[in-house]
Amino acid sequence: MEKRALLYEGKAKRVYETSDENIVWLEYKDSATAFNGEKKATITGKGRLNNEITSLLFLKLKDFGIPSHFVEKLSETEQLVKKVDIIPLEVVVRNLAAGSFSKRLGIEEGIPLSKPLVEFYYKDDALGDPMITEDHIEELKLADIEEVALLKKKALEVNEVLSGFFGDLGINLVDFKLEFGKDKEGNILLADEISPDTCRLWDKETNAKLDKDVFRRDLGNLTDAYENILARLGGSQHV
Amino acid sequence: MEKRALLYEGKAKRVYETSDENIVWLEYKDSATAFNGEKKATITGKGRLNNEITSLLFLKLKDFGIPSHFVEKLSETEQLVKKVDIIPLEVVVRNLAAGSFSKRLGIEEGIPLSKPLVEFYYKDDALGDPMITEDHIEELKLADIEEVALLKKKALEVNEVLSGFFGDLGINLVDFKLEFGKDKEGNILLADEISPDTCRLWDKETNAKLDKDVFRRDLGNLTDAYENILARLGGSQHV
Ligand SMILES: Nc1ncnc2c1ncn2[C@@H]1O[C@H](COP(=O)(O)OP(=O)(O)O)[C@@H](O)[C@H]1O
Ligand SMILES: Nc1ncnc2c1ncn2[C@@H]1O[C@H](COP(=O)(O)OP(=O)(O)O)[C@@H](O)[C@H]1O
Ligand SMILES: [Mg+2]
Ligand SMILES: [Mg+2]
Repeated sequence: MEKRALLYEGKAKRVYETSDENIVWLEYKDSATAFNGEKKATITGKGRLNNEITSLLFLKLKDFGIPSHFVEKLSETEQLVKKVDIIPLEVVVRNLAAGSFSKRLGIEEGIPLSKPLVEFYYKDDALGDPMITEDHIEELKLADIEEVALLKKKALEVNEVLSGFFGDLGINLVDFKLEFGKDKEGNILLADEISPDTCRLWDKETNAKLDKDVFRRDLGNLTDAYENILARLGGSQHV
Repeated sequence: MEKRALLYEGKAKRVYETSDENIVWLEYKDSATAFNGEKKATITGKGRLNNEITSLLFLKLKDFGIPSHFVEKLSETEQLVKKVDIIPLEVVVRNLAAGSFSKRLGIEEGIPLSKPLVEFYYKDDALGDPMITEDHIEELKLADIEEVALLKKKALEVNEVLSGFFGDLGINLVDFKLEFGKDKEGNILLADEISPDTCRLWDKETNAKLDKDVFRRDLGNLTDAYENILARLGGSQHV
Protein backbone atom coordinates (compact mmCIF):
# COMPACT_ATOMS: atom_id res chain seq x y z
CA MET A 1 0.00 0.00 0.00
CA GLU A 2 1.27 3.43 -0.92
CA LYS A 3 0.63 6.67 0.97
CA ARG A 4 -0.59 9.43 -1.35
CA ALA A 5 -2.03 12.95 -1.03
CA LEU A 6 -3.18 14.41 2.29
CA LEU A 7 -6.98 14.41 2.19
CA TYR A 8 -7.70 16.14 5.49
CA GLU A 9 -5.86 17.25 8.59
CA GLY A 10 -7.91 17.17 11.78
CA LYS A 11 -7.08 18.09 15.34
CA ALA A 12 -5.70 14.64 16.20
CA LYS A 13 -5.03 12.85 12.91
CA ARG A 14 -4.02 13.28 9.30
CA VAL A 15 -5.91 11.37 6.62
CA TYR A 16 -4.08 10.36 3.42
CA GLU A 17 -5.25 8.75 0.23
CA THR A 18 -3.64 5.46 -0.70
CA SER A 19 -3.16 3.49 -3.89
CA ASP A 20 -6.46 1.77 -2.98
CA GLU A 21 -9.42 4.14 -3.35
CA ASN A 22 -11.32 2.31 -0.58
CA ILE A 23 -8.55 2.64 2.01
CA VAL A 24 -7.16 5.69 3.78
CA TRP A 25 -3.94 6.04 5.79
CA LEU A 26 -4.37 7.59 9.24
CA GLU A 27 -1.48 9.27 10.99
CA TYR A 28 -2.00 10.00 14.68
CA LYS A 29 -0.53 13.36 15.73
CA ASP A 30 1.09 14.42 19.00
CA SER A 31 -1.35 17.29 19.48
CA ALA A 32 -3.88 17.65 22.27
CA THR A 33 -6.83 20.02 22.03
CA ALA A 34 -9.79 20.72 24.30
CA PHE A 35 -12.72 23.10 24.68
CA ASN A 36 -13.33 23.27 20.93
CA GLY A 37 -9.68 24.05 20.21
CA GLU A 38 -9.28 26.80 22.83
CA LYS A 39 -6.68 24.79 24.77
CA LYS A 40 -3.84 23.28 22.73
CA ALA A 41 -0.55 21.48 23.35
CA THR A 42 1.95 19.18 21.68
CA ILE A 43 2.46 16.04 23.77
CA THR A 44 5.21 13.75 22.53
CA GLY A 45 4.09 10.14 22.48
CA LYS A 46 0.35 10.84 22.40
CA GLY A 47 0.00 9.93 18.71
CA ARG A 48 1.70 6.58 19.28
CA LEU A 49 -0.39 5.81 22.36
CA ASN A 50 -3.72 6.58 20.68
CA ASN A 51 -2.76 4.65 17.56
CA GLU A 52 -1.76 1.59 19.64
CA ILE A 53 -4.80 1.75 21.94
CA THR A 54 -7.28 2.34 19.11
CA SER A 55 -5.80 -0.57 17.13
CA LEU A 56 -6.09 -2.91 20.13
CA LEU A 57 -9.67 -1.84 20.84
CA PHE A 58 -10.87 -2.23 17.25
CA LEU A 59 -9.30 -5.72 17.18
CA LYS A 60 -11.03 -6.57 20.46
CA LEU A 61 -14.37 -5.37 19.08
CA LYS A 62 -13.84 -7.48 15.97
CA ASP A 63 -13.30 -10.55 18.24
CA PHE A 64 -16.73 -9.80 19.69
CA GLY A 65 -18.34 -9.58 16.25
CA ILE A 66 -18.35 -5.79 15.96
CA PRO A 67 -16.78 -4.69 12.68
CA SER A 68 -15.10 -1.32 12.19
CA HIS A 69 -13.12 0.61 9.59
CA PHE A 70 -9.84 -0.77 11.05
CA VAL A 71 -7.64 -2.68 8.60
CA GLU A 72 -4.16 -2.82 10.13
CA LYS A 73 -1.59 -0.98 12.19
CA LEU A 74 1.31 0.11 10.00
CA SER A 75 3.68 1.72 12.46
CA GLU A 76 3.73 3.30 15.90
CA THR A 77 1.62 6.23 14.70
CA GLU A 78 -0.04 4.99 11.53
CA GLN A 79 -2.85 2.67 10.55
CA LEU A 80 -4.85 1.75 7.49
CA VAL A 81 -8.63 2.00 7.64
CA LYS A 82 -11.50 1.59 5.23
CA LYS A 83 -12.45 4.93 3.71
CA VAL A 84 -15.91 6.09 4.72
CA ASP A 85 -18.04 9.21 4.46
CA ILE A 86 -18.14 10.26 8.08
CA ILE A 87 -21.68 10.95 9.38
CA PRO A 88 -21.19 14.31 11.12
CA LEU A 89 -22.44 13.06 14.47
CA GLU A 90 -20.58 12.37 17.68
CA VAL A 91 -22.39 9.43 19.23
CA VAL A 92 -21.79 9.56 22.98
CA VAL A 93 -22.54 6.68 25.37
CA ARG A 94 -22.60 7.36 29.11
CA ASN A 95 -22.54 4.89 32.01
CA LEU A 96 -21.75 7.34 34.82
CA ALA A 97 -22.45 11.06 35.02
CA ALA A 98 -19.44 13.20 34.07
CA GLY A 99 -18.36 16.19 32.02
CA SER A 100 -20.95 18.11 30.06
CA PHE A 101 -23.70 15.71 31.18
CA SER A 102 -23.05 16.58 34.83
CA LYS A 103 -22.92 20.29 34.05
CA ARG A 104 -26.04 20.27 31.89
CA LEU A 105 -28.21 18.34 34.33
CA GLY A 106 -26.65 19.26 37.69
CA ILE A 107 -25.75 15.64 38.47
CA GLU A 108 -22.51 15.05 40.39
CA GLU A 109 -19.68 13.33 38.47
CA GLY A 110 -19.47 9.63 39.21
CA ILE A 111 -23.17 9.00 39.83
CA PRO A 112 -24.09 5.80 37.94
CA LEU A 113 -26.91 6.17 35.42
CA SER A 114 -29.88 3.86 35.71
CA LYS A 115 -28.98 2.53 32.26
CA PRO A 116 -26.50 3.39 29.49
CA LEU A 117 -27.59 6.56 27.74
CA VAL A 118 -26.86 7.68 24.17
CA GLU A 119 -26.52 11.31 23.13
CA PHE A 120 -25.87 12.84 19.71
CA TYR A 121 -23.71 15.87 19.03
CA TYR A 122 -23.53 17.65 15.71
CA LYS A 123 -19.88 17.40 14.60
CA ASP A 124 -19.40 21.02 13.58
CA ASP A 125 -16.47 22.94 15.05
CA ALA A 126 -17.93 26.32 14.04
CA LEU A 127 -21.08 25.58 16.07
CA GLY A 128 -19.09 24.08 18.97
CA ASP A 129 -20.35 20.51 18.46
CA PRO A 130 -23.81 21.17 19.99
CA MET A 131 -25.93 18.39 21.47
CA ILE A 132 -28.89 17.71 19.18
CA THR A 133 -32.02 15.61 19.27
CA GLU A 134 -33.11 12.85 16.90
CA ASP A 135 -35.59 15.29 15.37
CA HIS A 136 -32.76 17.74 14.69
CA ILE A 137 -30.77 14.94 13.00
CA GLU A 138 -33.75 14.27 10.74
CA GLU A 139 -34.37 17.96 10.04
CA LEU A 140 -30.70 18.50 9.15
CA LYS A 141 -30.81 15.31 7.03
CA LEU A 142 -27.69 14.01 8.79
CA ALA A 143 -29.28 10.56 9.02
CA ASP A 144 -32.78 9.10 8.71
CA ILE A 145 -34.81 7.56 11.55
CA GLU A 146 -33.70 3.98 10.80
CA GLU A 147 -30.06 5.03 10.67
CA VAL A 148 -30.34 6.87 13.99
CA ALA A 149 -31.83 3.74 15.56
CA LEU A 150 -28.97 1.69 14.10
CA LEU A 151 -26.32 4.12 15.40
CA LYS A 152 -27.85 3.90 18.88
CA LYS A 153 -27.98 0.10 18.76
CA LYS A 154 -24.38 -0.19 17.56
CA ALA A 155 -23.16 2.33 20.13
CA LEU A 156 -24.80 0.36 22.95
CA GLU A 157 -23.27 -2.88 21.64
CA VAL A 158 -19.82 -1.28 21.65
CA ASN A 159 -20.50 -0.11 25.20
CA GLU A 160 -21.45 -3.61 26.28
CA VAL A 161 -18.17 -5.06 24.98
CA LEU A 162 -15.87 -2.24 26.06
CA SER A 163 -17.40 -1.84 29.54
CA GLY A 164 -16.81 -5.53 30.22
CA PHE A 165 -13.35 -5.48 28.72
CA PHE A 166 -12.18 -2.37 30.62
CA GLY A 167 -13.98 -3.58 33.74
CA ASP A 168 -11.87 -6.76 33.76
CA LEU A 169 -8.77 -4.53 33.65
CA GLY A 170 -9.89 -2.57 36.72
CA ILE A 171 -11.11 0.39 34.70
CA ASN A 172 -14.51 2.05 34.76
CA LEU A 173 -15.66 3.07 31.27
CA VAL A 174 -17.48 6.26 32.29
CA ASP A 175 -18.42 7.53 28.84
CA PHE A 176 -17.07 7.65 25.29
CA LYS A 177 -17.62 9.14 21.85
CA LEU A 178 -17.94 7.21 18.61
CA GLU A 179 -18.04 8.27 14.97
CA PHE A 180 -19.60 6.27 12.21
CA GLY A 181 -19.32 6.51 8.45
CA LYS A 182 -20.79 5.04 5.30
CA ASP A 183 -18.66 2.89 3.04
CA LYS A 184 -18.98 2.76 -0.76
CA GLU A 185 -21.90 0.31 -0.50
CA GLY A 186 -23.74 2.56 1.95
CA ASN A 187 -23.10 0.31 4.97
CA ILE A 188 -22.72 2.10 8.29
CA LEU A 189 -19.33 1.30 9.82
CA LEU A 190 -17.76 2.21 13.15
CA ALA A 191 -14.88 4.58 12.32
CA ASP A 192 -12.48 7.20 13.70
CA GLU A 193 -10.73 6.26 16.98
CA ILE A 194 -11.43 4.80 20.42
CA SER A 195 -8.75 6.04 22.77
CA PRO A 196 -8.28 7.90 26.06
CA ASP A 197 -8.90 11.03 23.95
CA THR A 198 -12.45 9.85 23.26
CA CYS A 199 -13.28 7.84 26.41
CA ARG A 200 -13.46 8.69 30.11
CA LEU A 201 -11.55 5.92 31.89
CA TRP A 202 -11.36 5.90 35.69
CA ASP A 203 -9.29 3.49 37.76
CA LYS A 204 -11.80 1.39 39.70
CA GLU A 205 -9.76 1.42 42.95
CA THR A 206 -8.53 5.00 43.09
CA ASN A 207 -10.94 6.75 40.69
CA ALA A 208 -7.83 8.26 39.05
CA LYS A 209 -8.64 9.70 35.65
CA LEU A 210 -6.69 7.92 32.90
CA ASP A 211 -7.97 9.94 29.93
CA LYS A 212 -8.00 13.35 28.27
CA ASP A 213 -9.43 14.99 31.39
CA VAL A 214 -5.81 14.85 32.66
CA PHE A 215 -5.09 17.43 29.94
CA ARG A 216 -8.40 19.32 30.09
CA ARG A 217 -8.19 19.77 33.87
CA ASP A 218 -4.39 19.85 34.34
CA LEU A 219 -4.37 16.72 36.53
CA GLY A 220 -0.82 15.56 35.79
CA ASN A 221 1.11 13.76 33.09
CA LEU A 222 -1.05 12.70 30.15
CA THR A 223 1.30 10.14 28.63
CA ASP A 224 1.68 8.41 32.04
CA ALA A 225 -2.09 7.98 32.13
CA TYR A 226 -2.31 6.73 28.52
CA GLU A 227 0.71 4.37 29.08
CA ASN A 228 -1.17 2.96 32.07
CA ILE A 229 -4.17 2.17 29.85
CA LEU A 230 -1.98 0.69 27.11
CA ALA A 231 -0.11 -1.48 29.63
CA ARG A 232 -3.36 -2.90 31.02
CA LEU A 233 -4.53 -3.60 27.48
CA GLY A 234 -1.33 -5.65 27.11
CA GLY A 235 0.08 -3.36 24.44
CA SER A 236 3.66 -2.47 23.64
CA GLN A 237 5.12 -0.09 26.21
CA HIS A 238 7.92 2.40 25.88
CA VAL A 239 9.96 2.79 29.06
CA MET B 1 -63.51 32.73 45.41
CA GLU B 2 -61.10 34.23 47.92
CA LYS B 3 -57.43 35.06 47.33
CA ARG B 4 -55.24 33.64 50.09
CA ALA B 5 -51.50 33.20 50.74
CA LEU B 6 -48.84 33.74 48.06
CA LEU B 7 -47.62 30.29 47.06
CA TYR B 8 -44.88 31.30 44.63
CA GLU B 9 -43.60 34.36 42.86
CA GLY B 10 -42.05 33.71 39.44
CA LYS B 11 -40.48 36.04 36.91
CA ALA B 12 -43.80 36.87 35.22
CA LYS B 13 -46.59 35.84 37.59
CA ARG B 14 -47.56 35.47 41.23
CA VAL B 15 -49.44 32.32 42.30
CA TYR B 16 -51.86 32.54 45.25
CA GLU B 17 -53.84 29.91 47.09
CA THR B 18 -57.59 30.31 47.09
CA SER B 19 -60.44 29.12 49.27
CA ASP B 20 -60.64 26.14 46.86
CA GLU B 21 -57.64 23.82 47.27
CA ASN B 22 -57.86 22.78 43.59
CA ILE B 23 -57.73 26.34 42.24
CA VAL B 24 -54.95 28.92 42.24
CA TRP B 25 -55.11 32.66 41.55
CA LEU B 26 -52.57 33.93 38.99
CA GLU B 27 -51.52 37.55 38.92
CA TYR B 28 -49.63 38.66 35.82
CA LYS B 29 -46.81 41.08 36.61
CA ASP B 30 -45.46 44.03 34.63
CA SER B 31 -41.93 42.61 34.59
CA ALA B 32 -39.96 41.48 31.58
CA THR B 33 -36.91 39.23 31.87
CA ALA B 34 -34.66 37.60 29.30
CA PHE B 35 -31.43 35.61 29.04
CA ASN B 36 -32.15 33.66 32.22
CA GLY B 37 -32.90 36.83 34.19
CA GLU B 38 -29.79 38.76 33.08
CA LYS B 39 -31.91 41.42 31.33
CA LYS B 40 -34.79 42.87 33.36
CA ALA B 41 -37.32 45.69 33.08
CA THR B 42 -40.68 46.83 34.36
CA ILE B 43 -43.08 47.43 31.47
CA THR B 44 -46.40 48.96 32.44
CA GLY B 45 -49.30 47.15 30.79
CA LYS B 46 -47.44 43.90 30.05
CA GLY B 47 -49.20 41.99 32.83
CA ARG B 48 -52.61 43.02 31.53
CA LEU B 49 -51.73 42.19 27.92
CA ASN B 50 -50.42 38.70 28.73
CA ASN B 51 -53.37 37.97 31.00
CA GLU B 52 -55.84 39.01 28.28
CA ILE B 53 -54.03 37.21 25.48
CA THR B 54 -53.50 34.01 27.48
CA SER B 55 -57.17 33.97 28.50
CA LEU B 56 -58.32 34.37 24.89
CA LEU B 57 -55.97 31.65 23.65
CA PHE B 58 -56.94 29.11 26.32
CA LEU B 59 -60.62 29.77 25.48
CA LYS B 60 -59.88 29.31 21.77
CA LEU B 61 -58.07 26.01 22.50
CA LYS B 62 -61.04 24.86 24.56
CA ASP B 63 -63.32 25.58 21.57
CA PHE B 64 -61.11 23.21 19.59
CA GLY B 65 -61.37 20.49 22.22
CA ILE B 66 -58.03 21.14 23.92
CA PRO B 67 -58.51 21.53 27.68
CA SER B 68 -56.17 23.55 29.90
CA HIS B 69 -55.84 24.73 33.48
CA PHE B 70 -57.74 27.95 32.61
CA VAL B 71 -60.90 28.58 34.66
CA GLU B 72 -61.74 32.28 34.27
CA LYS B 73 -60.35 35.76 33.88
CA LEU B 74 -60.97 37.76 37.05
CA SER B 75 -59.61 41.19 36.21
CA GLU B 76 -57.22 42.88 33.81
CA THR B 77 -54.22 41.14 35.37
CA GLU B 78 -55.72 38.16 37.21
CA GLN B 79 -57.13 34.76 36.36
CA LEU B 80 -58.18 31.59 38.14
CA VAL B 81 -56.65 28.30 37.01
CA LYS B 82 -56.75 24.70 38.16
CA LYS B 83 -53.87 23.98 40.51
CA VAL B 84 -51.38 21.50 39.07
CA ASP B 85 -47.96 20.14 39.91
CA ILE B 86 -45.93 21.63 37.10
CA ILE B 87 -43.77 19.11 35.21
CA PRO B 88 -40.41 20.93 35.11
CA LEU B 89 -40.16 20.83 31.32
CA GLU B 90 -40.48 23.59 28.78
CA VAL B 91 -42.06 21.95 25.76
CA VAL B 92 -41.09 23.96 22.70
CA VAL B 93 -42.72 23.61 19.29
CA ARG B 94 -41.03 25.13 16.25
CA ASN B 95 -42.43 25.79 12.78
CA LEU B 96 -39.69 28.09 11.48
CA ALA B 97 -36.05 28.33 12.53
CA ALA B 98 -35.41 31.12 15.06
CA GLY B 99 -33.67 31.93 18.31
CA SER B 100 -31.63 29.23 20.03
CA PHE B 101 -32.56 26.69 17.34
CA SER B 102 -30.96 28.86 14.65
CA LYS B 103 -27.88 29.46 16.81
CA ARG B 104 -27.48 25.81 17.80
CA LEU B 105 -27.80 24.40 14.30
CA GLY B 106 -26.54 27.26 12.16
CA ILE B 107 -29.86 27.64 10.33
CA GLU B 108 -30.93 31.15 9.35
CA GLU B 109 -33.93 32.61 11.18
CA GLY B 110 -37.15 32.31 9.17
CA ILE B 111 -36.29 29.10 7.31
CA PRO B 112 -39.41 26.87 7.46
CA LEU B 113 -38.85 23.44 9.03
CA SER B 114 -39.85 20.39 7.03
CA LYS B 115 -42.35 19.60 9.80
CA PRO B 116 -43.19 20.96 13.27
CA LEU B 117 -40.47 19.95 15.70
CA VAL B 118 -40.74 19.47 19.48
CA GLU B 119 -37.88 20.14 21.90
CA PHE B 120 -37.70 19.72 25.67
CA TYR B 121 -35.89 22.04 28.04
CA TYR B 122 -35.30 21.29 31.70
CA LYS B 123 -37.07 24.08 33.62
CA ASP B 124 -34.26 24.89 36.05
CA ASP B 125 -33.09 28.50 36.33
CA ALA B 126 -29.86 27.50 38.11
CA LEU B 127 -28.89 25.31 35.14
CA GLY B 128 -30.07 27.90 32.59
CA ASP B 129 -33.00 25.79 31.30
CA PRO B 130 -30.82 23.42 29.22
CA MET B 131 -32.19 21.51 26.26
CA ILE B 132 -32.47 17.83 27.15
CA THR B 133 -33.31 14.60 25.35
CA GLU B 134 -36.09 12.14 26.06
CA ASP B 135 -33.50 9.83 27.64
CA HIS B 136 -32.45 12.64 29.99
CA ILE B 137 -36.10 13.17 30.97
CA GLU B 138 -36.37 9.48 31.83
CA GLU B 139 -33.04 9.42 33.68
CA LEU B 140 -34.04 12.49 35.74
CA LYS B 141 -37.47 10.92 36.33
CA LEU B 142 -39.17 14.13 35.17
CA ALA B 143 -41.70 12.04 33.21
CA ASP B 144 -41.91 8.49 31.91
CA ILE B 145 -41.82 7.44 28.23
CA GLU B 146 -45.61 7.39 27.83
CA GLU B 147 -45.92 10.84 29.39
CA VAL B 148 -43.22 12.24 27.11
CA ALA B 149 -45.10 10.85 24.11
CA LEU B 150 -48.31 12.44 25.40
CA LEU B 151 -46.63 15.83 25.96
CA LYS B 152 -45.32 15.74 22.39
CA LYS B 153 -48.72 14.80 20.99
CA LYS B 154 -50.52 17.50 22.96
CA ALA B 155 -47.93 20.13 22.02
CA LEU B 156 -48.34 19.32 18.32
CA GLU B 157 -52.14 19.52 18.65
CA VAL B 158 -51.85 22.95 20.26
CA ASN B 159 -49.56 23.95 17.40
CA GLU B 160 -52.09 22.77 14.82
CA VAL B 161 -54.84 24.93 16.35
CA LEU B 162 -52.76 28.00 17.14
CA SER B 163 -50.90 28.04 13.80
CA GLY B 164 -54.22 28.06 11.97
CA PHE B 165 -55.75 30.62 14.29
CA PHE B 166 -52.80 33.04 14.15
CA GLY B 167 -52.41 32.39 10.43
CA ASP B 168 -55.95 33.63 9.79
CA LEU B 169 -55.00 36.82 11.65
CA GLY B 170 -51.99 37.42 9.39
CA ILE B 171 -49.50 36.16 11.95
CA ASN B 172 -46.86 33.47 11.57
CA LEU B 173 -46.58 31.30 14.69
CA VAL B 174 -42.81 30.73 14.49
CA ASP B 175 -42.35 28.83 17.76
CA PHE B 176 -43.70 28.69 21.29
CA LYS B 177 -43.15 27.18 24.73
CA LEU B 178 -45.73 25.25 26.73
CA GLU B 179 -45.77 23.99 30.31
CA PHE B 180 -47.86 21.08 31.51
CA GLY B 181 -48.81 19.95 35.00
CA LYS B 182 -50.57 17.12 36.78
CA ASP B 183 -53.86 17.71 38.53
CA LYS B 184 -54.96 15.94 41.73
CA GLU B 185 -56.12 12.90 39.72
CA GLY B 186 -52.77 12.67 37.91
CA ASN B 187 -54.14 13.92 34.57
CA ILE B 188 -51.70 15.90 32.46
CA LEU B 189 -53.10 19.36 31.77
CA LEU B 190 -51.84 22.26 29.65
CA ALA B 191 -50.90 25.02 32.13
CA ASP B 192 -48.95 28.27 32.59
CA GLU B 193 -49.44 30.89 29.86
CA ILE B 194 -49.53 31.30 26.08
CA SER B 195 -48.63 34.86 25.26
CA PRO B 196 -46.17 36.94 23.23
CA ASP B 197 -43.77 36.21 26.11
CA THR B 198 -43.84 32.52 25.25
CA CYS B 199 -44.46 32.58 21.47
CA ARG B 200 -42.59 34.02 18.50
CA LEU B 201 -45.21 35.84 16.41
CA TRP B 202 -44.20 37.47 13.13
CA ASP B 203 -46.45 39.62 10.99
CA LYS B 204 -46.95 37.69 7.74
CA GLU B 205 -46.68 40.77 5.50
CA THR B 206 -43.83 42.68 7.11
CA ASN B 207 -42.14 39.94 9.18
CA ALA B 208 -42.28 42.43 12.10
CA LYS B 209 -41.69 40.69 15.41
CA LEU B 210 -44.73 41.00 17.70
CA ASP B 211 -43.32 39.14 20.72
CA LYS B 212 -40.73 39.19 23.48
CA ASP B 213 -37.89 39.44 20.95
CA VAL B 214 -38.86 43.15 20.83
CA PHE B 215 -37.56 43.29 24.42
CA ARG B 216 -34.70 40.76 24.07
CA ARG B 217 -33.30 42.51 20.98
CA ASP B 218 -34.35 46.13 21.69
CA LEU B 219 -36.54 46.34 18.58
CA GLY B 220 -38.98 48.99 19.79
CA ASN B 221 -42.01 49.31 22.02
CA LEU B 222 -43.08 46.03 23.56
CA THR B 223 -46.59 47.01 24.57
CA ASP B 224 -47.30 48.30 21.04
CA ALA B 225 -46.40 44.85 19.71
CA TYR B 226 -48.50 43.02 22.32
CA GLU B 227 -51.45 45.45 21.79
CA ASN B 228 -51.25 44.62 18.09
CA ILE B 229 -51.59 40.90 18.88
CA LEU B 230 -54.43 41.51 21.34
CA ALA B 231 -56.27 43.71 18.84
CA ARG B 232 -56.09 41.04 16.13
CA LEU B 233 -57.34 38.47 18.63
CA GLY B 234 -60.35 40.78 19.09
CA GLY B 235 -59.52 41.49 22.72
CA SER B 236 -60.16 44.58 24.79
CA GLN B 237 -57.77 47.35 23.86
CA HIS B 238 -56.57 50.29 25.91
CA VAL B 239 -56.00 53.46 23.93
N1 LIG C 1 -12.42 5.70 7.99
C1 LIG C 1 -12.41 7.01 7.78
N2 LIG C 1 -12.54 7.52 6.54
C2 LIG C 1 -12.52 8.86 6.32
N3 LIG C 1 -12.37 9.77 7.31
C3 LIG C 1 -12.26 9.31 8.57
C4 LIG C 1 -12.26 7.92 8.86
N4 LIG C 1 -12.14 7.79 10.22
C5 LIG C 1 -12.06 9.03 10.74
N5 LIG C 1 -12.13 9.96 9.77
C6 LIG C 1 -12.09 11.41 9.91
O1 LIG C 1 -10.74 11.82 9.95
C7 LIG C 1 -10.70 13.18 10.39
C8 LIG C 1 -9.45 13.42 11.20
O2 LIG C 1 -9.60 13.00 12.53
P1 LIG C 1 -9.40 14.02 13.73
O3 LIG C 1 -8.03 14.61 13.69
O4 LIG C 1 -9.85 13.31 14.96
O5 LIG C 1 -10.43 15.16 13.27
P2 LIG C 1 -11.31 16.23 14.11
O6 LIG C 1 -10.42 17.41 14.32
O7 LIG C 1 -12.47 16.49 13.19
O8 LIG C 1 -11.72 15.53 15.39
C9 LIG C 1 -12.03 13.40 11.11
O9 LIG C 1 -12.85 14.22 10.29
C10 LIG C 1 -12.61 12.00 11.19
O10 LIG C 1 -14.03 12.06 11.23
N1 LIG D 1 -52.00 25.81 37.08
C1 LIG D 1 -50.86 26.01 37.76
N2 LIG D 1 -50.72 25.51 39.02
C2 LIG D 1 -49.58 25.73 39.72
N3 LIG D 1 -48.53 26.43 39.24
C3 LIG D 1 -48.62 26.94 37.99
C4 LIG D 1 -49.78 26.76 37.20
N4 LIG D 1 -49.56 27.36 35.98
C5 LIG D 1 -48.33 27.88 36.03
N5 LIG D 1 -47.74 27.65 37.23
C6 LIG D 1 -46.40 28.06 37.68
O1 LIG D 1 -46.46 29.36 38.18
C7 LIG D 1 -45.13 29.84 38.31
C8 LIG D 1 -45.08 31.32 38.06
O2 LIG D 1 -45.05 31.61 36.69
P1 LIG D 1 -43.85 32.46 36.09
O3 LIG D 1 -43.79 33.80 36.74
O4 LIG D 1 -43.99 32.39 34.61
O5 LIG D 1 -42.59 31.58 36.63
P2 LIG D 1 -41.12 31.36 36.05
O6 LIG D 1 -40.28 32.47 36.58
O7 LIG D 1 -40.75 30.01 36.64
O8 LIG D 1 -41.23 31.32 34.55
C9 LIG D 1 -44.28 28.98 37.41
O9 LIG D 1 -43.51 28.09 38.20
C10 LIG D 1 -45.32 28.18 36.62
O10 LIG D 1 -44.81 26.94 36.21
MG1 LIG E 1 -11.44 13.70 16.22
MG1 LIG F 1 -42.71 31.51 33.19
